[in-house]
Amino acid sequence: MEKPTLPKGTRDFGPAVMAKRQFILETIKKVFQKFGFQPLETPAMENLSTLTGKYGDEGDQLLFKILDNGDFLKEVDQKKLETRNSKLLASEISGKGLRYDLTVPFARYVVMNRHEVTFPFKRYQIQPVWRADRPQKGRYREFYQCDADVVGSNSLVCEAEIILMTKEVMTNLGIKDFTIKVNHRSVLNGMAEIIGAPIAIGGKEPDLFVAIDKLAKIGEDKVREELLAKGFVNDKLDTLFTILKKPGSNADKLSFLSGQFTKSLAGQKGVNDLREVFSLLKSFESNDQQVELDIALARGLSYYTGCIFEVKINNVSIGSVCGGGRYDNLTASFGDKENLSGVGFSFGVDRLYDALEELNLFPKETQVSSKILICHFDDETMKFGLKALTAFRKAGIASEIYADQTKLKKQLDYANKKIIPFAVVIGPDEIKSGALAFKNMESGEQEKLTVEQIIQKLKT
Amino acid sequence: MEKPTLPKGTRDFGPAVMAKRQFILETIKKVFQKFGFQPLETPAMENLSTLTGKYGDEGDQLLFKILDNGDFLKEVDQKKLETRNSKLLASEISGKGLRYDLTVPFARYVVMNRHEVTFPFKRYQIQPVWRADRPQKGRYREFYQCDADVVGSNSLVCEAEIILMTKEVMTNLGIKDFTIKVNHRSVLNGMAEIIGAPIAIGGKEPDLFVAIDKLAKIGEDKVREELLAKGFVNDKLDTLFTILKKPGSNADKLSFLSGQFTKSLAGQKGVNDLREVFSLLKSFESNDQQVELDIALARGLSYYTGCIFEVKINNVSIGSVCGGGRYDNLTASFGDKENLSGVGFSFGVDRLYDALEELNLFPKETQVSSKILICHFDDETMKFGLKALTAFRKAGIASEIYADQTKLKKQLDYANKKIIPFAVVIGPDEIKSGALAFKNMESGEQEKLTVEQIIQKLKT
Repeated sequence: MEKPTLPKGTRDFGPAVMAKRQFILETIKKVFQKFGFQPLETPAMENLSTLTGKYGDEGDQLLFKILDNGDFLKEVDQKKLETRNSKLLASEISGKGLRYDLTVPFARYVVMNRHEVTFPFKRYQIQPVWRADRPQKGRYREFYQCDADVVGSNSLVCEAEIILMTKEVMTNLGIKDFTIKVNHRSVLNGMAEIIGAPIAIGGKEPDLFVAIDKLAKIGEDKVREELLAKGFVNDKLDTLFTILKKPGSNADKLSFLSGQFTKSLAGQKGVNDLREVFSLLKSFESNDQQVELDIALARGLSYYTGCIFEVKINNVSIGSVCGGGRYDNLTASFGDKENLSGVGFSFGVDRLYDALEELNLFPKETQVSSKILICHFDDETMKFGLKALTAFRKAGIASEIYADQTKLKKQLDYANKKIIPFAVVIGPDEIKSGALAFKNMESGEQEKLTVEQIIQKLKT
Repeated sequence: MEKPTLPKGTRDFGPAVMAKRQFILETIKKVFQKFGFQPLETPAMENLSTLTGKYGDEGDQLLFKILDNGDFLKEVDQKKLETRNSKLLASEISGKGLRYDLTVPFARYVVMNRHEVTFPFKRYQIQPVWRADRPQKGRYREFYQCDADVVGSNSLVCEAEIILMTKEVMTNLGIKDFTIKVNHRSVLNGMAEIIGAPIAIGGKEPDLFVAIDKLAKIGEDKVREELLAKGFVNDKLDTLFTILKKPGSNADKLSFLSGQFTKSLAGQKGVNDLREVFSLLKSFESNDQQVELDIALARGLSYYTGCIFEVKINNVSIGSVCGGGRYDNLTASFGDKENLSGVGFSFGVDRLYDALEELNLFPKETQVSSKILICHFDDETMKFGLKALTAFRKAGIASEIYADQTKLKKQLDYANKKIIPFAVVIGPDEIKSGALAFKNMESGEQEKLTVEQIIQKLKT
């Protein structure tokens, strides 16, 4: 029989990795809850009618589809079958697919439960999603998303709170050197107007945004090259790069943009919104340290309609670990006519994991493990050990006993491998005196302590 | 456009339900960890070669299969296609399926990671599974399982600890009236020998066990009827029911069984194991209150080889909420030759949920919600509110501000709907005096307190 394998692009998370992942997820969850967000979970499977057409053609290709149960071929038209057209057949024999992100199921939930939901609805959702992407380093076919959204409010307080939440998550994860990049869709639109590429007169905006989003990665020369090839002219691009490269503080940049946007209503709206967000941060008694207005930030351009965010951890190989922004019409794709605006934010758990690993920031106590292993020599010492075990657990100390009777060395090996910090060794002498051998597994130090003394020691 | 729907048999969990589910899962998780179990997660998708043949023919039918990506028909033999045989085609166009339980993925993990795993391996796993069962009340196509297993130990200490863990989970959930039913596969085998139906001489054991497992549900007469139809004879059945209905304490039953099993080695082994488990409970300074030797308990008979457990909450409509037992050869189905014995236990989250709801046992504080909502009247009072909000959150109090400017009534409605227990109302007077209106949303009482006084009040 062949050794079993895992499907391509999927992973098991063993105890050591799980402990670290739980540290990340718990940290994020606590901050979400502190800010008034409430949990939602949706099923792994959605009807394909819910999923299809929401992620573009490429996204549709990457959906995992579930084969209908039972005799799925029974009703399939013979002619369709004869075409041997996989796409055509798929729509006949598969009605469900796996969740591709958390936003579409969230929108579906809101549409289905509009009358029960309390608006503004602040929800968080932490669940895996599945994409049939070609697996590669750092890209998986199953991975967790960790989203927080407020829908049903236009207030910029939501934007300010997302910045505060991000700061708190980063800080609680122990990450000090990070930058929250902020921009605004209307600033991008204003810029497009200035250089004569507004969507209204030829629709070069998408080309423009796609190109400038790469500025940090590929540099000015290559972005210019790309835009020239798309039909932009050099003097307009000079203006563009003057704006994009404007140095100075956030306030400096906003003043400068304000001057540039005297004739662009969109641009002015963007500047005003951003000013208000920075002002709200002050009212929150926070500051704009670690928050940087990045005029070249243009992620997910087709989706976001207001502020745009991206968080970068500095000096690690995978920089960007989360992002989000304001969108209009969350539920429009479900034919919903109410204009539900929202702001959302998503943490990339795998990227945070890699960054924390690289920076060596996982706390040592993260490991989910017993604090004490009780070791013994025979039936009598083992049974004595069970009493001690009960006392430790009653005191709330995670602890265990080596269940089988075996050599002490093997028992201590087990403690070492499971990173259990203390061993209590019980021999006949220990039973007589009541003073147990309490061994620090890291230092090797050993002392004789009663059960009560051990509890005292571990509680302080 | 049609309103979106959920796939049959699946559910959304909104904030209120999620809070209750998290209470259950966190309670179980904490106990698992206190007993030295460590977390594992496996992917939702497994290769069908891993899943198929592990759950019997019926199980195979109930697997959700995932359609291969891309042009899945390309390589399919034309003749096979022409048969219009769904089963045959499925095996050609689908290589992966959704997790059906947590045990098979666990076994696969152990086989694939044998050299990294520390044995005895105490793992817990809390994840959803999927079954294409016909949905009905209380039966879903996606539901959580919540498993703890120890593999690589034959010690009955593991059995005793599973009983203790169950007791602690039930107690921590607030459930007082429950029974942990215990039996042993060898007791069942012994009984089969006595009444002349051992597997060796005709294989009537499965019929026997299936029938007696229903004793509590359908009563003696119907069980007798069923067994007579299967070819058992009346005087043997008299013996059977004398054993099954033996009254008295666990010790009484064990003495009685011991007398019955003088000629059955299997029976003796069962009695001795159970005696040792009860004796170990004593060594743990626990007792056998709420633990009942139920000689008719025969769940999952083909799977379990030693002790069998089932937990029943008394006086609720769905009684049995969890179960488990000892098995041999966890990894044998993967061709593994090492004899890995284990004991496992699984909590049914949906059933626990229904029972806690029925018994009205969910603590009120379960609700994941802010403690304070800050309400305001205009831009100035809102901005003052942001300062207070920052102070509350710095003190670790989950709190939020109504982000939009609207009528006070609407803001207080929001607090009520989200079950936020306190509102802080800030008007111009409050800004001047620094004493904020602090309103208890349940009682309606209101007092004037400073931010610091509110923090003090909520912290105590």
